[in-house]
Amino acid sequence: MAEPLKVGLAGLGTVGTAVVHLLERGRDKLLARCGRPIEVVAVSARVRGKKRDIELRKFRWVEDPSVLATDPAIDVLVEVMGGAGDPARRAVEAALAVGKPVVTANKALLARHGHKLAVLAERHQVQLNFEAAAAGGIPIVKTLREGLNGDALTRIYGILNGTCNYILSRMEQDRLAFDDCLREAQRLGYAEADPSFDVEGHDTAQKLAILASLAFGTKVDPGAIYVEGISSITLADLDAAGELGYRVKLLGVAVKTEAGIEQRVHPTMVRKDAAIAQVMGATNAVTVDADGLAPVTLVGPGAGGRATASAVVSDLADIARGVRTPPFGRPAARMTAVRKAPMQRHEGGYYIRLLARDRPGTAATIARRLAQQKISLESIVQRHETAASGASQPGRSGAPVPVILITYATSEDAVRKALAAVRRDRVISGRPQVIRIEKN
Amino acid sequence: MAEPLKVGLAGLGTVGTAVVHLLERGRDKLLARCGRPIEVVAVSARVRGKKRDIELRKFRWVEDPSVLATDPAIDVLVEVMGGAGDPARRAVEAALAVGKPVVTANKALLARHGHKLAVLAERHQVQLNFEAAAAGGIPIVKTLREGLNGDALTRIYGILNGTCNYILSRMEQDRLAFDDCLREAQRLGYAEADPSFDVEGHDTAQKLAILASLAFGTKVDPGAIYVEGISSITLADLDAAGELGYRVKLLGVAVKTEAGIEQRVHPTMVRKDAAIAQVMGATNAVTVDADGLAPVTLVGPGAGGRATASAVVSDLADIARGVRTPPFGRPAARMTAVRKAPMQRHEGGYYIRLLARDRPGTAATIARRLAQQKISLESIVQRHETAASGASQPGRSGAPVPVILITYATSEDAVRKALAAVRRDRVISGRPQVIRIEKN
Repeated sequence: MAEPLKVGLAGLGTVGTAVVHLLERGRDKLLARCGRPIEVVAVSARVRGKKRDIELRKFRWVEDPSVLATDPAIDVLVEVMGGAGDPARRAVEAALAVGKPVVTANKALLARHGHKLAVLAERHQVQLNFEAAAAGGIPIVKTLREGLNGDALTRIYGILNGTCNYILSRMEQDRLAFDDCLREAQRLGYAEADPSFDVEGHDTAQKLAILASLAFGTKVDPGAIYVEGISSITLADLDAAGELGYRVKLLGVAVKTEAGIEQRVHPTMVRKDAAIAQVMGATNAVTVDADGLAPVTLVGPGAGGRATASAVVSDLADIARGVRTPPFGRPAARMTAVRKAPMQRHEGGYYIRLLARDRPGTAATIARRLAQQKISLESIVQRHETAASGASQPGRSGAPVPVILITYATSEDAVRKALAAVRRDRVISGRPQVIRIEKN
Repeated sequence: MAEPLKVGLAGLGTVGTAVVHLLERGRDKLLARCGRPIEVVAVSARVRGKKRDIELRKFRWVEDPSVLATDPAIDVLVEVMGGAGDPARRAVEAALAVGKPVVTANKALLARHGHKLAVLAERHQVQLNFEAAAAGGIPIVKTLREGLNGDALTRIYGILNGTCNYILSRMEQDRLAFDDCLREAQRLGYAEADPSFDVEGHDTAQKLAILASLAFGTKVDPGAIYVEGISSITLADLDAAGELGYRVKLLGVAVKTEAGIEQRVHPTMVRKDAAIAQVMGATNAVTVDADGLAPVTLVGPGAGGRATASAVVSDLADIARGVRTPPFGRPAARMTAVRKAPMQRHEGGYYIRLLARDRPGTAATIARRLAQQKISLESIVQRHETAASGASQPGRSGAPVPVILITYATSEDAVRKALAAVRRDRVISGRPQVIRIEKN
């Protein structure tokens, strides 16, 4: 039998232990597919004595992950510790620098240092694989890196955060408020005690940065992403979206425009009949648009130990088979800095929900401000009777009335200016709610 | 610059010409990704003088595709002629036998001779790629061959024929009969003049045979597949399915059972909220179930020159990069003959629509026959008033009445025996309609 691929595993949390189990269970299949076994030989983790459902004594323990990374007894480092900084970064760099391939599930590390790591991997002619770093159980990294090769990609967008999609799905299906769904997600372990990284869109942004780089050949740059979370979304928005044939999803979107690559994370209205609109619960999905080709959508589990381990093991199998590709699908030296399309120049349709003061002239004022910015309206819905909407309790004479506007394609800049003017006119109460509409 | 990968292209129909265009348009991207250009140098097709939207004189013309296959000037053969027999088979075998890799879009060839071709490719240590042969624009072959590596796959199922899905979608959405939708599909070029290969399920079966082989490591064997088409599906079935929360799709399903691998193509009721149920029109979709992992679904264009060319070019790029994998994901010598699970042993829920004679004792007789086969019913709907169903025009006293039964999990054998008995009892009119329910 051929020599086994010997793995050093850094990180023994949910993902690390799932990798150990999956390599054991999948042993025969991996051997058949790769022509050689894949074996964990040494491990490293923060706390040695912690209770885990693996037999730790089967593996050599190495205290420092960076020492594990350069251990002569390992052929490949699997990094599933997480975090953009050390010890993860130092361990990954150490492995690559001594010519050992790396498999990592670390989205923060890739988003922050992806390009530098790719340069390092290529300099030492070793593989750097990270299928697990974006939409874990969905083979989107491989699809972007090795598939769709001749196609000019124009847009990639997806549901990349299971927590947010779970919350938005629960809100709609069970008619609950955001806060209630968030608490439920925390109870079920879908959301962290501090949920802001998920619900404010930052997790989605890290994953989008990686996918955009693969799709467009630009250096990973999370700083180029406009980010907005879902905490302002109300049931009234979901209801209005539903009536108009839309559903609200937190999407990460990267799109080629004349002004450069537009990268943005925000609540988005998508047509209900689009494949991505149907994705409910903690499931992830990514859609890829290419010139002249109907969209391709991949749907599957985005996170969790088992799904992430599945991606890690597939990456290991590629290394065992000797598959060599540049980390981001093309040589790092040929990747360009992102030419960032400013958010003000974003163009598309908008959903705007205002609480209009119920007095003469309000509608005319709003209409005038929109017209001044050359914004045309596809529809206007004004509701005096909103007991069911959950958004507010108006209806008494003089109390504010919800007005929902859907615009034809316009620019972010125009919408912002028009709404600023409307606010200055004091014809609305509170902040307007704005949700961008994504064509699909 | 590195040496280009020189392509011999056999077949200049819709797909062949689309490959030429895509290689030209994607030239820079392919060079960046593969480190070398990919160039068509010689072509072969049935008729030289035919009008095509490519400049034929840019390529050397070779009359016989088998001569092209072994031409010393080419590095790889692209076979997009189609057909399980010659000239496609001879050309592919000729190329492999002289150690030239092959990319083919030919599902009939792969379904019939896939295992022998894989053996030949491995013996000569060359790549045989066929992403375009099953669900063209969806990277399912690569996902099964190189992804999900450690996972024990339990089931793969999909919408693999755009014509059938278009017809079923139109029937439901526009309330049209099967024949009307078929004519519409023919007018739009989605269906052939002789539509039986598509609508009777044979096209789906060829693709399923290829996917099942990749998923389960068994030798391709279309003879192991139970095949049933959609021509018996009526609007009454779609309506009843809709009311029960299901949608009817023509699925190809391959599933591991205790009795072996069950492979079947038939109209199937799937829950409306499943990702695959949402796929409408000519789009294809494939879902993969693995042990302990949430399902992964890939959705995209299944056919058409552009989508097929995209898959062919991605296969070429892998060859240009030197990626080497066994054609079916594991060495051909390790693939086993399909242990075919007999259809009689299929287990699942069933939808049964009967036209019951409207006279005393009919219901009791049907119930007794089902009970004798230990079939339990989840629901029974009997409709005296069916003017809207389009299935029949009963309602007059004594005329047959549609009865719709949904069974709990039972066996194909039990259902067939119970229905045969019911027919012998002469309590129903015509043939019962049976649609299997797929859990998802």
